[in-house]
Amino acid sequence: MPDARLDVLAIGNAIVDVIASADDDFLAREGLAKGSMRLVDADEAARLYGRMAPGRETSGGSAANTVAGIAALGLRAGFIGQVATDQLGEVFAHDIRALGVEFATSPRGGDLATARCLILVTSDAQRTMNTFLGASQYLPAAALDQRQIEDAAILYLEGYLWDPEEPRAAMERAIAIARGAARQVAFTLSDSFCVDRHRDGFQALIDSGRIDILFANEAEIVSLTQAADLAGALAAVEGKLPLLVVTRSEHGALAIRGSERAEVVAEPVAKVIDTTGAGDLFAAGFLAGHARGRPLEESLRMGAIAAAEVISHYGARPEADLKALVATKLG
Amino acid sequence: MPDARLDVLAIGNAIVDVIASADDDFLAREGLAKGSMRLVDADEAARLYGRMAPGRETSGGSAANTVAGIAALGLRAGFIGQVATDQLGEVFAHDIRALGVEFATSPRGGDLATARCLILVTSDAQRTMNTFLGASQYLPAAALDQRQIEDAAILYLEGYLWDPEEPRAAMERAIAIARGAARQVAFTLSDSFCVDRHRDGFQALIDSGRIDILFANEAEIVSLTQAADLAGALAAVEGKLPLLVVTRSEHGALAIRGSERAEVVAEPVAKVIDTTGAGDLFAAGFLAGHARGRPLEESLRMGAIAAAEVISHYGARPEADLKALVATKLG
Repeated sequence: MPDARLDVLAIGNAIVDVIASADDDFLAREGLAKGSMRLVDADEAARLYGRMAPGRETSGGSAANTVAGIAALGLRAGFIGQVATDQLGEVFAHDIRALGVEFATSPRGGDLATARCLILVTSDAQRTMNTFLGASQYLPAAALDQRQIEDAAILYLEGYLWDPEEPRAAMERAIAIARGAARQVAFTLSDSFCVDRHRDGFQALIDSGRIDILFANEAEIVSLTQAADLAGALAAVEGKLPLLVVTRSEHGALAIRGSERAEVVAEPVAKVIDTTGAGDLFAAGFLAGHARGRPLEESLRMGAIAAAEVISHYGARPEADLKALVATKLG
Repeated sequence: MPDARLDVLAIGNAIVDVIASADDDFLAREGLAKGSMRLVDADEAARLYGRMAPGRETSGGSAANTVAGIAALGLRAGFIGQVATDQLGEVFAHDIRALGVEFATSPRGGDLATARCLILVTSDAQRTMNTFLGASQYLPAAALDQRQIEDAAILYLEGYLWDPEEPRAAMERAIAIARGAARQVAFTLSDSFCVDRHRDGFQALIDSGRIDILFANEAEIVSLTQAADLAGALAAVEGKLPLLVVTRSEHGALAIRGSERAEVVAEPVAKVIDTTGAGDLFAAGFLAGHARGRPLEESLRMGAIAAAEVISHYGARPEADLKALVATKLG
């Protein structure tokens, strides 16, 4: 296999986040399950937006946040995702390119706007997400550049993008290209509600041996396996995944590669402001370490450091100099 | 004069801010004067945006920030300003209405986008602003609601809006309506470069006795009067302004009303992050006190508290509960 031009190429929803404060009463009145992500249509997005507090807009999208972190750590990253020809689409494209991420997916014309995620952050720093997928759900397989996928050491896919049909087909195609080129395929389960919607599809993907690296949090892996607890979930997927990474919020994270198992505690954070992007940035740190061939434990530490940075402020992308931060913390 | 329905009604540019980090070298390469505001056309805005770091978008606009602060302090505020029928226009309208500010100006159709201010924040927390006025420069006098202006105790106008012709005419008309209804007219000089562009116009406005309250920082009042220093500037405008408020950054602020003079020190801030909106929020705090008939010194203190809050984070609108903050600090 030839040297890779990119370390990580991600496919994900191309989303602009709209972050606003909310209290528990607001979530209750709107019937929202704290900490979850739900899909909303244009009408519901407009209705909820009309009731929300003033927002701040920043580029988001789970896998897009991950490659933003990977680029910030000094690695070569690319992103594939569908925006519309509108102002928020320009914002998304600008922000990801300004980080040095290769982003060449053509914007989509027509009525559907760029995807937006209305994120309600409560005072306990939890985020509750309401995603209007808009143009993002129409990423076509035709938008893939076969050569670009073959040129990336790791293809990284987000489970959220399994919801709409066209991007799911695009991801299936991308997996086939990557495997054909003997590249690694990484996948994140994204959200336990997402796992509920696609348990069979995700299980089939894993059982077929097409996933090399799986990222999940505790709730997601338990939901996927329908096990009673984490230990049961780990037992259920044993031997099916060359590399499994499980994040456990304030309890740290663990990774299992064959008979090798590593575990780290969570990185301390002075004050957790907004947990949006915690999992995305954990994946960024871990993949950056993994792509460079670092030991499991060091990659986990890099994930924990990147996650700790992103939850210490509003917004799902790093604000500090991640590369310097990791260098300092790893000593 | 009947009771006012609104405490403060502002007319200003309706702008969405795009805030990004930059270093001194970037400002130098782009030939930008740190701390200033310059107007840019669509091409220059696109060019500069293409070179900037990833941004975060939040509603801005000087006078709009001020009424946002006034509403956050629990007073009744309204805003008049021109957005376009686009996504950033929706963002602006949502954010200001979500604060409880009355905002009824119809969006403008056509090619011109909603105004954007590209704000470069350096590590010393200074902001350098590049404003694309877009739709904002076409606020027509016809957009004014005479009754709304007559119903507001204080009309507040931003000097920045003196640049484009249509809004200038609208502001002249609004001043005439407010004075006809025996309401107070407040004006901010906005920026020393803005004063350079409109010194004669601003002087004529003051000399004609149409301004009841003038807000300026030290550089602006010195530029307006072309005096050698602050003392000279104050002497030059003596007797021409019923109430003058001068902010002096870390040196505090002073107010002069006839023979009465009050002064406050700056409110301490743990770490200054982004000075965008400092003057706007000072005006908000001061006007909130003034509208409630508080003593000069207390109004200045309220201004200093609101300014200190806004410079402690990115973005030009308050994030903390300003009302609670002022109540605690004033004891």
